[in-house]
Amino acid sequence: MESSQNGSWEAKVKAARERLAKKIQSQSRLDMATFPRAEEQPISAFELLQSSGILSGCDLEITQSTDVTALLEKIHKKHYSAEAVVNAFIKRATLAHSVTNCLMDVDFEASLERARELDRLLATTGRFVGPLHGLPVSIKDLTAVKNLHYTMGYLSWADNVSEQDAVVVASLRQAGAIIFAKTTMPQSGMALETVSQLFGRTLNPHNKHMVAGGSSGGEGALIACRGSLLGIGTDSGGSIRIPAAFNGLYSIKPSSSRVSYKGNMNNSGSIGAASSIGPMAHSVRDLRLIMKVLIDDEHWLKDAAIVEKPWQDISIGPESEISIGVIEDDGLHAAEPFVLNALHIAKDKIEADGHQVTDIDPMLFDFGKGALVKERLSYELGRGFIRSELDQTGELPIEAIKHKIDHDAQSLEEVVENHRNWKQNKDDFLAAWMKTKLSTSNKKPIDALLLPVCSKVGFEHDTLPPPEYASIFNFLDYPAVTLPVTFVPETGTGSTGDAACYAGMPISVQLVSTTLTEEKLLAIAEIVDRAIRG
Amino acid sequence: MESSQNGSWEAKVKAARERLAKKIQSQSRLDMATFPRAEEQPISAFELLQSSGILSGCDLEITQSTDVTALLEKIHKKHYSAEAVVNAFIKRATLAHSVTNCLMDVDFEASLERARELDRLLATTGRFVGPLHGLPVSIKDLTAVKNLHYTMGYLSWADNVSEQDAVVVASLRQAGAIIFAKTTMPQSGMALETVSQLFGRTLNPHNKHMVAGGSSGGEGALIACRGSLLGIGTDSGGSIRIPAAFNGLYSIKPSSSRVSYKGNMNNSGSIGAASSIGPMAHSVRDLRLIMKVLIDDEHWLKDAAIVEKPWQDISIGPESEISIGVIEDDGLHAAEPFVLNALHIAKDKIEADGHQVTDIDPMLFDFGKGALVKERLSYELGRGFIRSELDQTGELPIEAIKHKIDHDAQSLEEVVENHRNWKQNKDDFLAAWMKTKLSTSNKKPIDALLLPVCSKVGFEHDTLPPPEYASIFNFLDYPAVTLPVTFVPETGTGSTGDAACYAGMPISVQLVSTTLTEEKLLAIAEIVDRAIRG
Repeated sequence: MESSQNGSWEAKVKAARERLAKKIQSQSRLDMATFPRAEEQPISAFELLQSSGILSGCDLEITQSTDVTALLEKIHKKHYSAEAVVNAFIKRATLAHSVTNCLMDVDFEASLERARELDRLLATTGRFVGPLHGLPVSIKDLTAVKNLHYTMGYLSWADNVSEQDAVVVASLRQAGAIIFAKTTMPQSGMALETVSQLFGRTLNPHNKHMVAGGSSGGEGALIACRGSLLGIGTDSGGSIRIPAAFNGLYSIKPSSSRVSYKGNMNNSGSIGAASSIGPMAHSVRDLRLIMKVLIDDEHWLKDAAIVEKPWQDISIGPESEISIGVIEDDGLHAAEPFVLNALHIAKDKIEADGHQVTDIDPMLFDFGKGALVKERLSYELGRGFIRSELDQTGELPIEAIKHKIDHDAQSLEEVVENHRNWKQNKDDFLAAWMKTKLSTSNKKPIDALLLPVCSKVGFEHDTLPPPEYASIFNFLDYPAVTLPVTFVPETGTGSTGDAACYAGMPISVQLVSTTLTEEKLLAIAEIVDRAIRG
Repeated sequence: MESSQNGSWEAKVKAARERLAKKIQSQSRLDMATFPRAEEQPISAFELLQSSGILSGCDLEITQSTDVTALLEKIHKKHYSAEAVVNAFIKRATLAHSVTNCLMDVDFEASLERARELDRLLATTGRFVGPLHGLPVSIKDLTAVKNLHYTMGYLSWADNVSEQDAVVVASLRQAGAIIFAKTTMPQSGMALETVSQLFGRTLNPHNKHMVAGGSSGGEGALIACRGSLLGIGTDSGGSIRIPAAFNGLYSIKPSSSRVSYKGNMNNSGSIGAASSIGPMAHSVRDLRLIMKVLIDDEHWLKDAAIVEKPWQDISIGPESEISIGVIEDDGLHAAEPFVLNALHIAKDKIEADGHQVTDIDPMLFDFGKGALVKERLSYELGRGFIRSELDQTGELPIEAIKHKIDHDAQSLEEVVENHRNWKQNKDDFLAAWMKTKLSTSNKKPIDALLLPVCSKVGFEHDTLPPPEYASIFNFLDYPAVTLPVTFVPETGTGSTGDAACYAGMPISVQLVSTTLTEEKLLAIAEIVDRAIRG
């Protein structure tokens, strides 16, 4: 029976993958015969994308726009039509998929049609539909996009199609964005790499031996390849930040009550733990633009979980001093030298720009207790829901979740205790944050905390994920930004050991502030990023 | 054993009551020998308070200030010293306690000392300590006030003394308020009347045969008697609004994440249901003043449960049109004629002032489902915690909670189901609110909902509480204001039946808006109240 079941689920996988390949081919109309498949790519995918011969000079110019803001400026100046923009990204996303395996559904034809409609509207009315007029946007598997598939990486969901848009998708469309592709995620979503029986493995375009990160790893790979300049990811334990960090992208995980999660699938293992949804992109200003678009759409009128808090324009002038606390090591997750080096670069540059940097004693925050609370909470309802999905088709669990699916539900007493501890832990962390004023030279609490996203620069496929600094901020519900700082040198420069293994990988840092202060965090992130770049 | 236990707990009750009586007598230094005790009062307590002979003309003037705002104006103009003000309220609170039994602890001596200190500070620095400089404030039993008792109405807690102030108390003190008394609540807090074995029964000063409401019934009676112009109540199922309504007061139950509940005891029967804390007073402008003082103290820096949302000054000019939806009957709780009459008065006057009033079909909101969700949620953890408190001393349950203490905890599956239904119910209610735009003449959703607080004007002691319209807004977490509209005629005017029973009782209405819109709700309440007052 084992083998017949296996035979059965493997046939279903084959059918689903063929359906996807045909859809991409027929809708992109690209002949990819001579273009390498994921496994055959060189270590880094970037050279291939540049020299494919498939992208025109104009396609390259469009897709290599600095960021969304720069691209939209050109659209607003009518330098690019929406059709040309969408067309360029359809091509580049198809190439990116070929080398990283990052797409799980596409809507290329309808997107081109919508682009032409936007061009006509602009020509006849002289008006742009909204601030994102003509911008192609990619969306993660588990976020509902009308008429497109969602699977959570489960074979049993392979035929699921959304009947309506998630709230975030509706906001983006209303602002003029065009949803043109959906991206891969790991089976069940509970992994920091992106692999499923259903769609296989998504590779990191910086280094194919490294994971793309997860669970929003399809977005990470696609945006790093500039197959999209803006993607929407979800994060209930690092799932936006880890792939953003491993792919050298900017991202923000907002507080869970700031942007509506409605219309996103969820495999929650806890009663109260909420997931966040937010943008992954190529600049802080893009993150700010998208957050403003989403919050301006007043999600609190559509989703009772969202706080009625309109977007505030906060900008901090270059002359203002900001105060950053730094934690290099939380006492649980020793960061490796590459990560520490990136932190030091960031610290030095922030200080050199005249801002206050304070080393924070990690003992001030009880990270150990936080980790325990997080652990208890995330498993409180057990993992029967994953097992039952796998059992429906007989598909095997991926390596990353093998050890996670045996948990049974806790008792009600334990659950009550978890929630009491959780509340206490949030209060303790906040009190510790306020106590940082005892260490800062201006005697005020720090404006933001700078720390690693993960103790390592990345990890190889199917290996145990390294300890991270991300998921604690889900349970605290603090907004958190990732900022790329530097790169591991390319291979061939005589590097050995870790450096060889990580060749070409980006190294990122994380910037965090307290709940519901997204505007302030982004304003600070802009200053920190300017310091790092400059 | 029954009798020896009874003997034992009754002796403890006697000791606690004597301790309180002595403390009040020694600190107030009033000879109350000739003043009636609660049971001996005439039907209405008000005449007695006026003609006590204990209050001087100046005491009467101070305690009969229109409201807190008017009183503070006089303090700011140095017309009254803080000492004179505190002294007047100590006297009047003592009288109010004598006729209604509304106090459970006092801090008269320290309050007078603090008042003299404030007077000295003002004299030497010329500056007021804060916006509430010299204002005496009363606080409900379960809210921590340093060095004063808290009991939750349990005999087993009779000797509990708070070691520090609740966050709200600290905010008030910082603004210059003087906490001078603590007020009664029912045993366990889970009753809409105020009676405990420990302190006995609190009477309604409008009509001693009627309950004072609960659980903030001590505040209701004290403020109605003008033994305090401002009290702080807590509300997890109507506990601010019911006593405010039954005592003819203004009150606001804020969203639970707007003002910190830290430092308040809680008997939660649910994992996620949160309690609210807010002011009870004599005008809408007082509610607004106190809410601003509390929110300006940035509770989000002290309590991780509080939303980072600074106070916004919203005022709606008299020329602006507001849109009020009215629900006279939710299909579950038929309101009696007195309550309907008050609603009609309010509706007519709001309309006469040029505002939009729309009758809302109660079927639009699924109140029935809301009531079920609420019921399941509030009992999910069972009521063992009440039984175990009672068992510690052997005290008997009060009538109101006898039928509530037998519930055992639900299963984890049921709890998970409750929370799913709760979330859905919140979304459904919000969607229904947005759908009111189909009925309004401006085609926008209503600004606020006007409905009863309770189906009845009040109820007699130890009778089953009437169905109310209050607790649903705890589970939805919508802010809700009570506004007094009119009175049942005094007895002796030939009235019979209900009218005779309710003689002199105030009749109130409830005004509600969506989560975290306290500023807007208070601005609308001001317009509605102005219309009602004429």
